[in-house]
Amino acid sequence: MLIIPLDKKISKPIYRQIVDKIAKLIESDTLKEDDTLPSTRRLSEQLGISRQTVVQAYEELWSLGYLRSSQGAYTKIRKRPSIVKKHNRGKMTMDYEKEIIGKQKAGFINALIKTKNATTEQTKIIDMSAMDLDSSIFPVDTFRKTMNNVLKQYPPSLLNYGDPQGYRPLIEWISQRMLTHSIDVFPDEILLTDGISQAFELLVKLFTERGDTVFVESPGYRQALSLLAAHGVNVIGVPMKVNGMDLKVLKKKLEASVKMNKRPKFIYTVPTFHNPTGITITQQHRERLISLCLDYSVPLIEDSFEEEIRYYNRVVLPIKSMDHHQIVFYLGTFSKVLFPGLRIGWLAGEKGIIKKLTALKKLTHLSSNTLTQAALYEFCKAGHYERFIKKVNDHYASKMSTAIKLMKECLSFDQVSWHNPSGGYLFWLKVDVSSENESDLLKLCEKNGVKVLGGSKFFIEAPESVYLRVCVSSTNIDEIKKGIRILSISIRDFLTNRA
Amino acid sequence: MLIIPLDKKISKPIYRQIVDKIAKLIESDTLKEDDTLPSTRRLSEQLGISRQTVVQAYEELWSLGYLRSSQGAYTKIRKRPSIVKKHNRGKMTMDYEKEIIGKQKAGFINALIKTKNATTEQTKIIDMSAMDLDSSIFPVDTFRKTMNNVLKQYPPSLLNYGDPQGYRPLIEWISQRMLTHSIDVFPDEILLTDGISQAFELLVKLFTERGDTVFVESPGYRQALSLLAAHGVNVIGVPMKVNGMDLKVLKKKLEASVKMNKRPKFIYTVPTFHNPTGITITQQHRERLISLCLDYSVPLIEDSFEEEIRYYNRVVLPIKSMDHHQIVFYLGTFSKVLFPGLRIGWLAGEKGIIKKLTALKKLTHLSSNTLTQAALYEFCKAGHYERFIKKVNDHYASKMSTAIKLMKECLSFDQVSWHNPSGGYLFWLKVDVSSENESDLLKLCEKNGVKVLGGSKFFIEAPESVYLRVCVSSTNIDEIKKGIRILSISIRDFLTNRA
Repeated sequence: MLIIPLDKKISKPIYRQIVDKIAKLIESDTLKEDDTLPSTRRLSEQLGISRQTVVQAYEELWSLGYLRSSQGAYTKIRKRPSIVKKHNRGKMTMDYEKEIIGKQKAGFINALIKTKNATTEQTKIIDMSAMDLDSSIFPVDTFRKTMNNVLKQYPPSLLNYGDPQGYRPLIEWISQRMLTHSIDVFPDEILLTDGISQAFELLVKLFTERGDTVFVESPGYRQALSLLAAHGVNVIGVPMKVNGMDLKVLKKKLEASVKMNKRPKFIYTVPTFHNPTGITITQQHRERLISLCLDYSVPLIEDSFEEEIRYYNRVVLPIKSMDHHQIVFYLGTFSKVLFPGLRIGWLAGEKGIIKKLTALKKLTHLSSNTLTQAALYEFCKAGHYERFIKKVNDHYASKMSTAIKLMKECLSFDQVSWHNPSGGYLFWLKVDVSSENESDLLKLCEKNGVKVLGGSKFFIEAPESVYLRVCVSSTNIDEIKKGIRILSISIRDFLTNRA
Repeated sequence: MLIIPLDKKISKPIYRQIVDKIAKLIESDTLKEDDTLPSTRRLSEQLGISRQTVVQAYEELWSLGYLRSSQGAYTKIRKRPSIVKKHNRGKMTMDYEKEIIGKQKAGFINALIKTKNATTEQTKIIDMSAMDLDSSIFPVDTFRKTMNNVLKQYPPSLLNYGDPQGYRPLIEWISQRMLTHSIDVFPDEILLTDGISQAFELLVKLFTERGDTVFVESPGYRQALSLLAAHGVNVIGVPMKVNGMDLKVLKKKLEASVKMNKRPKFIYTVPTFHNPTGITITQQHRERLISLCLDYSVPLIEDSFEEEIRYYNRVVLPIKSMDHHQIVFYLGTFSKVLFPGLRIGWLAGEKGIIKKLTALKKLTHLSSNTLTQAALYEFCKAGHYERFIKKVNDHYASKMSTAIKLMKECLSFDQVSWHNPSGGYLFWLKVDVSSENESDLLKLCEKNGVKVLGGSKFFIEAPESVYLRVCVSSTNIDEIKKGIRILSISIRDFLTNRA
C-alpha cells in the first residue's frame, strides 16, 4: 500500500503533495519501473480525498514523465531521466568548432576573445589603452533625479515594448540638436541605436552581402574592421595621411573598382578626431571626399563619435552638413560625453533607408530601451547635457594640455613623431623602427607600468613602422604624467638597446 | 577696408567674432570668390588686437573652407558649398535599392515594413493580435525606488561601459533562479542579451552560414522565421501536431538531411506555450526530442519565453534540465513577465559557446545596459520579481479563464476547433475552410471590431485551413469578452455567407 502523508494545513495543494511524494519515491528507487500505482478511485478512498484530486496528481505525474499511460489509465511507473546537475554531467559529445561553426569562423572569433582578455590583465598598470570615460565627473545625481521623475510621471506603458525607431521625443531633440552642427534633418531621418556599433552593423547588413567590397581608412577603427570581417566583407584600406585619407589613392581605387565591377558598397570614415590617429580633416578635404562619393555613386558613412569633444572651440562641420544628395549616413553617440552604459547612439540618413534599418533592427531588438531613452531625453531637455558638455570639454582639455606639454618635453627626439590633436582623447605616436618591434616595445612598456595599444591592429595592410595609440580619457592627470614619463623612458630604452 | 565691429565685453572670443563676421560677409556675397583679405599684420593693426588672434581667425576660416591658402598666407576668399537645409536639398542621385541593397533583399525588408504598418492602424478596434503585456499592473513604483537606490548607492562607474556578458550579479541571480526550473548551470554558461531575439540572432550568426539548413516548427514563431530569412538560412519546417513537433517527420527529415550531407545547424523549438499554437509538449516528448538531437548531433535551441506564465501550478521541466551533453541552448527573458521595455533576456548553454557569443555581441554592442541590469538585479534580489510573478499569474489566469469560458460558449460549433492552453496568452483557432479565405475572414473581423492574427504567416508551407491567433495579454476582461463575441459572430457570419 502507498502511504502518502498529507497536510491540509499547509498552502501546498493536496494534489501537489501527492505528486511530490510519488516523484520522490520514484527518484529514490522505492518505486521501480513498471510498478503499478493504485487506481485513482482506490487512492482517493485511502486518502479520504476527492477522486478528482488524485486524477489531477496522476495527470501531472504523467506530464512529468513519471507514469506510462495505457488505455486511459496512468498507473505504471516510468523511470524518467534525472535532472542534470552541473557537477555531474555526461561527456560533451558535440565538437562545435568542427561540426557546427567551422574552423575558419571559430578561429576568427577565438582571436576576438583573446584580444578581449589581453586588455583586462593587470591592475597596477597605468592603462592608456582603452578609450573609457572618466566616470568620476558623470552627473549621476542629476540623472538620478531625472530618472526618478520619469518613473513617477510617465505612464507605466513606458516600460512596455516601445518603438523600434526609438523614443520619439529624443529623436526630435536630436534632430534639433544636430542643427548646432549644421546638420538639418527630419526626425524620420533618424534611428536611435544602442550605440554606434549597432548603427554601423545595421548599415553593413543592409548595404552589403558576403564578398562585397567596402573602403575604410587604414589605419582605422578596429571594432569596425572586426565587424566587417565578421560579415565576410572584403575590406580595402585607403592610407591615412597627416591630413586624412589619401584622396588620390582613393580616387585610383574607386576608378579600379568600377572597372572591375566591384564598386564599394560604402566608404567608412571618421573625419573628426579619427581613431586611432586623432586627425581631423579640413573643410576642403571633406568637400573633395563627398564629391568623390557622388562621382562614383558610393554612400559615405561618417562616424562622428567624438563630435562634441572639441576643446578649443574650433568648428569643423560634419560632412553630413554638405550632403545635398542624401549620400551620407551620419553616426552619432552620447557615449563619448556621458553614460556610455546607457548605450544610446543614433544614425541620420535618407528616410527610406532609415525605415529599412528600423525593420532590420526590429528583427533582433523588438523595441528600444525606452526607459533610458526617455530619461536621457528629459535630461537633455532640461539643459543638463549642454552644460555637461562644457564640463567635459574643460575636464579633458586640461588632461590633453598636460599630456601635450609633457609629450613635447619627454618625447621630442628624432625617432618619435606625432601631431597634436585638436580634440578627442588620442595621441598617435610613430616610432621609427620596423613594425616587427611592436610587441617587444609594448611588452617593455607594460613591464615598466604603462599600457598603450600597438598600432598594427588598426591597419589593413601591415605598417612599416611601429605606431602606438595613447589615450588620456580614463586616467587622471597624475597618471597621465606618470604614464607619459614611463612611455618615454620605455621608448628611449628600447631604441638605445636596439642600437 | 574690412570693418569688423568687435565687442570685448561679451564672452565670445575675439577670434571667433572675426570668423563669424567674415563668414557672414562671404555667405551674403559681400565678399566674393578670389577677393583678398588684408594681411594678418594689417588687420591686427586696424583692429588694435594681437596679430596672433587674427592668425587664429584666418586659420579657422581656412579650416572651414572660406579661404584658400597659398604660400603660407590665407588671404583669398573661397566660396564653400552652403550648408544643406532640409527643405532645400538637391535631387537624390542614388537608387539605393537598385545600386546598393539589391532588389531581392529590398523586397524582403519592404515586406517587413509593411507587416509592421499593418499592426498599427485603427484605434477603436479590440486588438487581440499583439502579445504586449498589460502595463497597468507593472510594479513601477517599486522599480522606481530600486532604481533610485541604485543610482544613489552604486559607484558612477556603473554608467560607464560594462561587461558585454552582462552585469555579473544579475547573471549569478539568474543561474540560481533557473534552479527552480531544474536548470543547473554555472554563471559562465549564461549570457545576458537585449531580449530573446538578440540571443537568437547571436546563435544564428555563430552556428550558420548563408545557405545552411535549420529546422523549425511549422507553424512557428514569426519573428524567428523572418530573422532566419534575413540571414539567408534555409528553413525546413516540421509540422506541429496537437502534442508538439511531429517527431516521426522530424526523424525522417533528419535522416534525409544527413544523407544529403545537409545536416541542420540547429533545431529551434518553443516547447512551452508555443507561439502561435499555445501547445506545451510533455516530458516524454521532450525526452524523445533531445535524444533525436543527440543521435543526429544537432544542437537544440529551446525558446522558453513564457516559462513563468503557468497559471495552474503545473510543472513541465525545460528540455535544458535533461541536457547531459550540452547540446541545448536555453533562451529566457523577463519581458513576458515585466518591463519588456528594459530589454533583458538571457541565453544559457555551453561555456565555450557563451564565450564566442559574448565576443560576437561585443562587436555590435560594446557593453550591456548595465544600469537597467543592475536595477533589475536589485529588484529581483529583494524578492519583488518572485512576488510579481504570482500577481502576473493571477492576473492573466483570470483573463484566460474568462476567455476559455466564453470561447466554449460562443465558439463550440463544428467548423471551429482549438485546445485550451495550460498557460501563456494565446489561443490558436482552426477554422475548417480553405486557407484562401484567411484575408477575407480577417477583414470581416476587423470590420466588426476585433483584430487577431492570421495563421498563414506562421507556417513554412501554406496551411490547408484557416488559423487565427488570438491573444489575451494586452486587453482587459471586458475587451476580451467583447472581442471573443465579435470574433464568434464574425466567424459564424463568414461561414454562413460562404455556405
